[in-house]
Amino acid sequence: MIEEILNQMKIILNDTITALATPHGSGAIAVIRLSGKKSFEIIDKVFFDKEFKSKKIAEQKGYTIHFGIIAESDIVIDEVLVSVFRNPHSYSGEDSVEISCHGSVYIQQQILQLLLKHGARMANPGEFTLRAFLNGKFDLSQAEAVADLIASNSGLSHQVAMQQMRGGFSNKIKILRDHLVNFASLVELELDFSEEDVEFADRTDLKKLVHSIIGIIEKLVMSFEVGNVIKNGIPVAIVGKPNAGKSTLLNVLLEDDRAIVSDIPGTTRDTIEDEMIIDGVLFRFIDTAGIRTTTDVIEQIGVNKAFDAIKKSAIVIYLFDAHEISSGDLKLEIDLIKEHIGNSQLVIVANKIDVENLEDLKKEFASYDVIYISAKEHKNINELKQKLVGLFDARTVNTTETIVTNARHVDSLKRANEALKKAIAGLDSGIAGDLLAVEIRYALDELGSITGEVTNEDLLDSIFTRFCIGK
Amino acid sequence: MIEEILNQMKIILNDTITALATPHGSGAIAVIRLSGKKSFEIIDKVFFDKEFKSKKIAEQKGYTIHFGIIAESDIVIDEVLVSVFRNPHSYSGEDSVEISCHGSVYIQQQILQLLLKHGARMANPGEFTLRAFLNGKFDLSQAEAVADLIASNSGLSHQVAMQQMRGGFSNKIKILRDHLVNFASLVELELDFSEEDVEFADRTDLKKLVHSIIGIIEKLVMSFEVGNVIKNGIPVAIVGKPNAGKSTLLNVLLEDDRAIVSDIPGTTRDTIEDEMIIDGVLFRFIDTAGIRTTTDVIEQIGVNKAFDAIKKSAIVIYLFDAHEISSGDLKLEIDLIKEHIGNSQLVIVANKIDVENLEDLKKEFASYDVIYISAKEHKNINELKQKLVGLFDARTVNTTETIVTNARHVDSLKRANEALKKAIAGLDSGIAGDLLAVEIRYALDELGSITGEVTNEDLLDSIFTRFCIGK
Repeated sequence: MIEEILNQMKIILNDTITALATPHGSGAIAVIRLSGKKSFEIIDKVFFDKEFKSKKIAEQKGYTIHFGIIAESDIVIDEVLVSVFRNPHSYSGEDSVEISCHGSVYIQQQILQLLLKHGARMANPGEFTLRAFLNGKFDLSQAEAVADLIASNSGLSHQVAMQQMRGGFSNKIKILRDHLVNFASLVELELDFSEEDVEFADRTDLKKLVHSIIGIIEKLVMSFEVGNVIKNGIPVAIVGKPNAGKSTLLNVLLEDDRAIVSDIPGTTRDTIEDEMIIDGVLFRFIDTAGIRTTTDVIEQIGVNKAFDAIKKSAIVIYLFDAHEISSGDLKLEIDLIKEHIGNSQLVIVANKIDVENLEDLKKEFASYDVIYISAKEHKNINELKQKLVGLFDARTVNTTETIVTNARHVDSLKRANEALKKAIAGLDSGIAGDLLAVEIRYALDELGSITGEVTNEDLLDSIFTRFCIGK
Repeated sequence: MIEEILNQMKIILNDTITALATPHGSGAIAVIRLSGKKSFEIIDKVFFDKEFKSKKIAEQKGYTIHFGIIAESDIVIDEVLVSVFRNPHSYSGEDSVEISCHGSVYIQQQILQLLLKHGARMANPGEFTLRAFLNGKFDLSQAEAVADLIASNSGLSHQVAMQQMRGGFSNKIKILRDHLVNFASLVELELDFSEEDVEFADRTDLKKLVHSIIGIIEKLVMSFEVGNVIKNGIPVAIVGKPNAGKSTLLNVLLEDDRAIVSDIPGTTRDTIEDEMIIDGVLFRFIDTAGIRTTTDVIEQIGVNKAFDAIKKSAIVIYLFDAHEISSGDLKLEIDLIKEHIGNSQLVIVANKIDVENLEDLKKEFASYDVIYISAKEHKNINELKQKLVGLFDARTVNTTETIVTNARHVDSLKRANEALKKAIAGLDSGIAGDLLAVEIRYALDELGSITGEVTNEDLLDSIFTRFCIGK
């Protein structure tokens, strides 16, 4: 059945595709990809040496580079480098070439138009990676990791995506499936001999195995909590009275981050207004705009957006003006926040410190773990940052351990887990072999859908349309 | 002397440079360039196979591609392709590699940082091309054409830049210099034998030669008029009364252009508000905002910005509302415009035509060459466009003929021309050989400065800082 779908798709994908692989716009160079059976035939119609003789790419070895001109009739479009990749040793697993041309938008257009004219078609989003999957270069979770890798903007999310792309997660799933498949076959074999009342699959061994698999799956499901914050950032809310300096603090934190990033010319990252990376960990600030309009946090906290922010966050920074609050007031506010904070972590920060009376302040608030800063004068900001990182403690996240970051994978793992639990219950109650087989088969399918051993066209569509064109 | 400067620069340029070569931002892939003596040494410190063994790029052949990982300690930054180019067979003429990595900004940053850590430095703008020039891969006018090529956005400007990059213009200049050098040597030889009153250089032949060179140079200088509009666009002013529909017409012309361009997914060009390409020719609309606020073009035309626009333009479109003007009024307006139009071409356009009374209108304005359009209903817009292209007539521009597009080159050509004219005058008046030699030598230097045979550091700086980083 899956073979059938894949074969159908392969027929659809029989043509040769092309797309710009580098970001849009002008640059020193741009790269245009061409992949499919006719890649060499098409490139040989447009790629020549200086005397307009064909460079005969079809006859060249893979992993070689060729200098020449792309021309239409006798008009030279560009001097380019053509890299040759022969099936199956290419990204897509097909014959393919990459054209490295001068980075003018006009040239990119002209070359693409020429390739289309000679029989290529524009690639759909993610189609090069889809073909890599269909040709067995990647499994599905690895293909998904390619998109995560490109989107990742912090050290941790990058490492997790890289590990997934390189097959770490896939191997784990594969081992689970292999164990189950073996037992499933034995259980199903029993069904063929059902009248003889044999048991090829030892029920005690099977129970032990299913228990151990459930254990592994539950650990993977739990890892998603960490995986999700690694991928999407740790949600942080800054709450406090309007005059406490929340926006100043947020700006100081974000500016610092931008400044570090822009140290390397030419790599300024697309700034997302409310994200910040400290020691490779992504923090995402939750909009607490609603709080800013209230005049008294104690009175208003129950009715404004601060509650929402606190609920959505993993870390709550409570910021107060060190000069405007007594120890007693602080206690009241903190107690109120704590009522609503759930599992989130609370960081108490005193702002607007003067050097002169710092010791007095420290005495006043001695009963709390307070970080003393001046957002305006950039004092002790680093201390606050280290506190935030410490709460997540990136160093304890072992990136060689498998961490699930994909909601689709977690859903499949959870469904597999439910089926396996039913199987256990069935084993306890002496369920019939055929019912047992159904549950195990269901769990196998769910695990298989993660890596794409079990798949369908809708699933593939929904995964690959999220890719950019050219990947 | 020039050798000395170049040698000094080569010492400065002794280090190994790196930069992102593809446009900023995320994409399927990005390419990072590394060029200089230590390119292979540096890449071998960071590029490994799957078992973290060195890929020994230093031992690989040029024009080959290698798959592996970029890693720091045991952390994999990315799976990449490394292309190897060995001195002198690379863009810069140096040992160099291109790293094709996943197009995440984070990965780009990490790889660049790693290369810097291992001894590379960030390249200056245009430094790869500067090195290509210093290593004799390009002459100076070819290097300048690389920047023009990347900036070109129309078929014609692209063809002219391409021809210049491929050495068409350089060859022409070289032939002129070779002829002159020969004679200069003979004239200078005479000086060594000055007491013997010999003439190695036949004065009649010399005069003939200089005349022919002057003819070629003047043709090149004249080609700049065309070259400049090819490169920068043909300036067009749309003038007319406020209610004539000028903005509607401009929008219709520009929209049409955008629609054509955006036919190819992923290559939408950076829209410049007032530029349009028809049949490969770039037209640039001059801001005539000033006109829009006047209420009577006849009374106001002398005092508003319309004059400026007309003066700056090569084509003036006079647009009028076909229903609101008599033949007599039209005559008055056209006469007034003609007083100020100089060498510009005038195109008279009647807007807001109804199909019913079109024939009446044609009779009314029969004494003028009028194009009848409806900007609002997109009627006859194509006819107007063809008229514009016809005025420039792209088809008569022979792009295999040398066209000068660079103001620096024209200045040098003009100065060489002046010196040669002085030489001719000197020859007519029987000037002494040493004075003749001075003029010829001056002309030679000016011609040499175009191709960079004669150059200095300031000139190189001013040329290459206009490049983008990574080229």
